[in-house]
Amino acid sequence: MSPAHERSVVSVGEFEFDCGESIPDLRLAYETYGKFTGDNAVLVCHALTGSAHVAGRRRRTGGRTDEDSEDDGGSGGEDGGSGGDSAAGSGGDRTAATHGQARAWWDDIVGPGKAIDTTAFYVICVNAPGSCFGSSGPASADPETDDEPYGTDFPAVTVGDWTRAQRRVLDALGVPGLHAVVGGSVGGMNALEWAKRHPDGVDRVIPIAAAARLDAQCLAIDAIARRAIQSDPNWRGGDYYGEGRERPKRGLTLARQLGHLTYLSKASMNRKFGRRSAGRDALRETFPTDPAAGFFPYRDVESYLDYQGSSFAERFDANSYLYLTRAMDNYDLAAGYESDAGALAAFDGEALFLSFTGDWHFTTAQAERLAEAFRDSETPTAHHVIESDHGHDAFLVEPEKVGPPLADFLAEGVAGRAVTDTDDGDGDEATSEEFAPVHVGLFGD
Amino acid sequence: MSPAHERSVVSVGEFEFDCGESIPDLRLAYETYGKFTGDNAVLVCHALTGSAHVAGRRRRTGGRTDEDSEDDGGSGGEDGGSGGDSAAGSGGDRTAATHGQARAWWDDIVGPGKAIDTTAFYVICVNAPGSCFGSSGPASADPETDDEPYGTDFPAVTVGDWTRAQRRVLDALGVPGLHAVVGGSVGGMNALEWAKRHPDGVDRVIPIAAAARLDAQCLAIDAIARRAIQSDPNWRGGDYYGEGRERPKRGLTLARQLGHLTYLSKASMNRKFGRRSAGRDALRETFPTDPAAGFFPYRDVESYLDYQGSSFAERFDANSYLYLTRAMDNYDLAAGYESDAGALAAFDGEALFLSFTGDWHFTTAQAERLAEAFRDSETPTAHHVIESDHGHDAFLVEPEKVGPPLADFLAEGVAGRAVTDTDDGDGDEATSEEFAPVHVGLFGD
Repeated sequence: MSPAHERSVVSVGEFEFDCGESIPDLRLAYETYGKFTGDNAVLVCHALTGSAHVAGRRRRTGGRTDEDSEDDGGSGGEDGGSGGDSAAGSGGDRTAATHGQARAWWDDIVGPGKAIDTTAFYVICVNAPGSCFGSSGPASADPETDDEPYGTDFPAVTVGDWTRAQRRVLDALGVPGLHAVVGGSVGGMNALEWAKRHPDGVDRVIPIAAAARLDAQCLAIDAIARRAIQSDPNWRGGDYYGEGRERPKRGLTLARQLGHLTYLSKASMNRKFGRRSAGRDALRETFPTDPAAGFFPYRDVESYLDYQGSSFAERFDANSYLYLTRAMDNYDLAAGYESDAGALAAFDGEALFLSFTGDWHFTTAQAERLAEAFRDSETPTAHHVIESDHGHDAFLVEPEKVGPPLADFLAEGVAGRAVTDTDDGDGDEATSEEFAPVHVGLFGD
Repeated sequence: MSPAHERSVVSVGEFEFDCGESIPDLRLAYETYGKFTGDNAVLVCHALTGSAHVAGRRRRTGGRTDEDSEDDGGSGGEDGGSGGDSAAGSGGDRTAATHGQARAWWDDIVGPGKAIDTTAFYVICVNAPGSCFGSSGPASADPETDDEPYGTDFPAVTVGDWTRAQRRVLDALGVPGLHAVVGGSVGGMNALEWAKRHPDGVDRVIPIAAAARLDAQCLAIDAIARRAIQSDPNWRGGDYYGEGRERPKRGLTLARQLGHLTYLSKASMNRKFGRRSAGRDALRETFPTDPAAGFFPYRDVESYLDYQGSSFAERFDANSYLYLTRAMDNYDLAAGYESDAGALAAFDGEALFLSFTGDWHFTTAQAERLAEAFRDSETPTAHHVIESDHGHDAFLVEPEKVGPPLADFLAEGVAGRAVTDTDDGDGDEATSEEFAPVHVGLFGD
């Protein structure tokens, strides 16, 4: 059963970004689920390319959905669970994953009777400023230039900006404080920022598959992805909107293909694709090729990447991808403080971290260091490590493992029955080294 | 002391590639070191973008080197040890890594008194067909079209082609059989192919940081790298040679940046770069950018990737990169047989595998499976695992760990004193799972 939900866009007026620049009217797309009772608000923060559409199937009426055609995820990785649909990219199954199916990105977790129970909680999700799913971003009309799109004149955005924007939406909704903030991936950084920036404004924070900051390897991958977009001649410095102009789809496709690498693990890639050739009807047309390529197979993994990448490029804005990855790369919990623990000193709620052993984008070791920082700031903290070889996508595709600790923590905090912790209470705390995930150790072949 | 060496190009006449196409005259660039005594030949196989120039400093005469200006590696990763030069890509040190320094790619290992002792062994290295360092490849003149470059009309190449080409060079040199074949990365696949294709032609094989085949994750990375090249409008289907034409440098730069990701580990990237900003004099000019980017730092890791990528794009041919990665991706030791062990049944020499715990490109688990295949074929085998957090680059940048087992194996086979093995002889063989490397567990920060 899907939750009743409301979907809207609110204008919050002038907004000054952390970079110092302002826009006259920040518009924020959001969805809410359930009823607000005064103390039951749960803010859900989406991942890099997600939307406000967390849960709920869209009803079709007369062959069309009853909502507009905004595409908020569909079959993609971080924005909606491609990891659980292993055939989506294979040649033979292309028609099964058409655009605009508007699959909610966390429908397995959010809803009536689900882990985030919308009969008990009032759930809010806001599309991040800089994104392209209804909130103001580079593709939005700039009122100061006769409604030409901002393009790269849109101010730089940060995770801090996202957090302040979410606070504005809550003000508009009449929600003074949050029971909890939960988010996966960069959405987990967003949740951390709430504990730092609004320490009295939230009781429980739940960063999932997150870290206090990206490591050098992930910074490198994002940097290469941005260069792929910026190298596309159709990018034109970000000025590609308007009639008759090609969008930088190849560059964005490459960037998304790199993203998919980071969402999967060696084990999940071997299991899903191995070295198999794609089906006979797989099309090798996303990128130019050459005669010598014909001697070699077009592999399943290539077909998957081509399909996922190019369908993402149809629904996402390339400039937004630049903006949002920069926000993620720049995030550092300790910024402005001496340490992560220092940044959290004022927070007196509780914290639950969920991490996944097969995740090399945001590792269990990073989550453990974060948990240590919360413990150092005397926050009741649990770090619940989930065995999974699904890679980073696990937070989307393993709801049966994510749901129970999440539900129990929302209800009872760290004392929740299904909540486990790496610190077993014997005073001999686990160290982050013990949680080094075995990235390459779960081969299926 | 550098070894005396000879450098030449030999025409071996018509050559039919595994794909079935032929060229009328295959030219092969090679270097030799030391003197052939009848039973002391050691073939060294270079990695993806390497050259025949394994060892030996080039003497400068009158301000120029005494050899031609062919650039055979310099500061790059797999082709010559950027991993050991952590500052090479940082802004302030750019002049230290100028082109054409012609640094030999394994000078720490090959030479008089070194692990592969050129006073005892006759060392041969051949630039692979399809490459661009003197051997025939896409950039070579096609005699059938008035010496226009082949471009992508050059036949597809395989690791098997490389092996047969090397055998032709040995014929030309009057070398009937090899004491040993050694190679790192895809050069290790090349060494494996010798045991398979010429089982009586080599006594000892030493694949280093290698595998029987790439896994799905590495296939994906190579596929994305090729798409980056093919997306560059200057690639033009491979037809970019000739006066006045731009080469697809941005695409090749992106491809090389992806390569560098795979050569390093999380630990080595955190140690080398962390999240630091590049020096003030670092240039952010390799790729187009936009105003909003200016709010964020240009990081050390970006400076490194931009420098390494763009200098590689100056010295390497984009079509060769397509050809060589396809050869690597396509390699499968078991091809034509029921299993890896089946492919090795006729080999009755000895085998040494070197692998590195921090290598996620070619993992210790993959090396252990290879060693098991050799043991299954009753080959005296040792798998010597080296603790390292240098990633795949370790085979180039940790000569003090690679040298001793290599030297002792060349002299005494698996009985060599410094040679260790994962199979401790108690009948309770190690399994590949035990050697799952801890890719993300060696954080320095």
